[in-house]
Amino acid sequence: MTFKYKNVYINETALVTGPYEKKGPLESYFDKSYSDLYFGGNTWEGAESKLIEESVNILLSKLNKTKFDIDVHVSGDLLNQLVSSNYASSRLGIPYLGVYNACATSVEGLIVGANMVEAKQVKNCVVSVSSHNNAAEKQFRYPVEYGGPKPKTTTFTTTGGASCYLSYNKTGIKIESSTIGKVVDMGIKDAYHMGAVMAPAACETLYEHLKETKRKVDYYDLILTGDLGVYGKEIFKEYLKDEYNIEIKNYDDTGTMIYDLNKQPVYAGGSGPACAPLVTFGYIFNQMKKNKLNKVLLIATGALLSTTMVNEKYSIPAIAHAISLEVIE
Amino acid sequence: MTFKYKNVYINETALVTGPYEKKGPLESYFDKSYSDLYFGGNTWEGAESKLIEESVNILLSKLNKTKFDIDVHVSGDLLNQLVSSNYASSRLGIPYLGVYNACATSVEGLIVGANMVEAKQVKNCVVSVSSHNNAAEKQFRYPVEYGGPKPKTTTFTTTGGASCYLSYNKTGIKIESSTIGKVVDMGIKDAYHMGAVMAPAACETLYEHLKETKRKVDYYDLILTGDLGVYGKEIFKEYLKDEYNIEIKNYDDTGTMIYDLNKQPVYAGGSGPACAPLVTFGYIFNQMKKNKLNKVLLIATGALLSTTMVNEKYSIPAIAHAISLEVIE
Repeated sequence: MTFKYKNVYINETALVTGPYEKKGPLESYFDKSYSDLYFGGNTWEGAESKLIEESVNILLSKLNKTKFDIDVHVSGDLLNQLVSSNYASSRLGIPYLGVYNACATSVEGLIVGANMVEAKQVKNCVVSVSSHNNAAEKQFRYPVEYGGPKPKTTTFTTTGGASCYLSYNKTGIKIESSTIGKVVDMGIKDAYHMGAVMAPAACETLYEHLKETKRKVDYYDLILTGDLGVYGKEIFKEYLKDEYNIEIKNYDDTGTMIYDLNKQPVYAGGSGPACAPLVTFGYIFNQMKKNKLNKVLLIATGALLSTTMVNEKYSIPAIAHAISLEVIE
Repeated sequence: MTFKYKNVYINETALVTGPYEKKGPLESYFDKSYSDLYFGGNTWEGAESKLIEESVNILLSKLNKTKFDIDVHVSGDLLNQLVSSNYASSRLGIPYLGVYNACATSVEGLIVGANMVEAKQVKNCVVSVSSHNNAAEKQFRYPVEYGGPKPKTTTFTTTGGASCYLSYNKTGIKIESSTIGKVVDMGIKDAYHMGAVMAPAACETLYEHLKETKRKVDYYDLILTGDLGVYGKEIFKEYLKDEYNIEIKNYDDTGTMIYDLNKQPVYAGGSGPACAPLVTFGYIFNQMKKNKLNKVLLIATGALLSTTMVNEKYSIPAIAHAISLEVIE
């Protein structure tokens, strides 16, 4: 399902990260980065929640607005029951819609928000996501204190909070169109190879998007997935060629961009709902504002992983949503 | 945040339940009820997922449509990562948005769907929710096999799947307006008294709705909360009077309607995202179609409960969303 937009813009963004992202190559594009992972609190969940709250507060401060100026807050995260978003929302006090499609939540939120702005049902909308490495490890795998070794196909959950402000005011970056994806399940049960789980969903959504907009891949200066990682990226390119007969060159994956893969111990790259917006709203928007890139398609990919279902021997489904971002003419 | 709609209708609904609901007073309003809790599968999560899949398939069959006719499926449930919705979606193959606001998910989904239909961004939308007693007990409390006793303020998670079809075709029940609520945290930490946790959020959303629509409570023939239960219902009425100076008489709670509270062992009544739509789409819509009720406000209430946060001594936040339902003139 593809939507075309005439009047939706990402006017402003705010990005807060943890220490691993701070040590990565994109540090200068973040608004704030912490050197530890607690951020002054005493739980991982509380820390992650602070990432959302703080990114919204920095956003409001950049816009010279208060929470009373915001019509709706659309937010989601990886934690069970979306507690990072819920507890941030409890402190923020803005009408709130919780959304969840794993690491595709970032673009899912943008689509829900963009639809309301385009229809002028709201005059603005703040969209947020967060992820926190230790909170995610504790919930989905093992507490990091165990120090268990992992296969190289594993990705490393980004610690970050990303918020953006959408309105029909023509400043910033235009949201030109979007595509809601379908759930794809290839029967994979390996919870340490999310790139393989998600790559086919990314291909399916890209194919649908191109078909429904009658475009070729070269319409875009850059197509980004977020986040397949080093191995998933190769699977994506191969699967796209084999299944859909599409060759892609103008392509990168935000999971391979946020860290220095040669120096940082992040396995196959970054993941988590925050990764794609940290890279896109930071570095990519900067490139767009300098006109080095004009048209970018971001495909956020989510592995709908559940420890319960994995333990019960179900395979892992995946989904991907796409959003077309353009420099304002 | 309140939206007014001119052209959104719930054309059709489909309701599937488990055995407890079948034994309750509203059985005749359900499309299908199972006598066991596995539904032919072998996990509670798989069973719950079947409730969504089956309710969508019954809905499509009633409409004489296939999945290819549906633009978007908005769905959510109580299970971690929304696995009930995700795995159903994997089998259904309809573009999918996962939403989560605990037991307020039903109305949250309706709002997201109604906004897209009103703006004619989609020609139709299916909105689903599910809950499953044993899946919820296992995840949030203890496996039911333990047989642990509970306080009387506990509510009993409904087993059911509810789906509805929204479009701008003028048949069925009109969605007249909706209000997105804010997260309210009153500092309550008792995970066995959700009615107390959620009642203030329901009051806040009702107050906002009345203020933004310039209405009094008697504008509605019936105001429904879903689900506060026996004790939460009293707290709601008292808190509404004390804090907002609103006296309410035309009021009921779907948690107290779905079971026979005198005969069934359901503590303070039903809960779970499925409860409110099972009662509303079934019995209440029937009353509306007979013109016994013309204007109904449904306030779905969600306790944003997380076992992790409760164990870490955080209080439990809550949210409520409202939707105004009208008989077509």
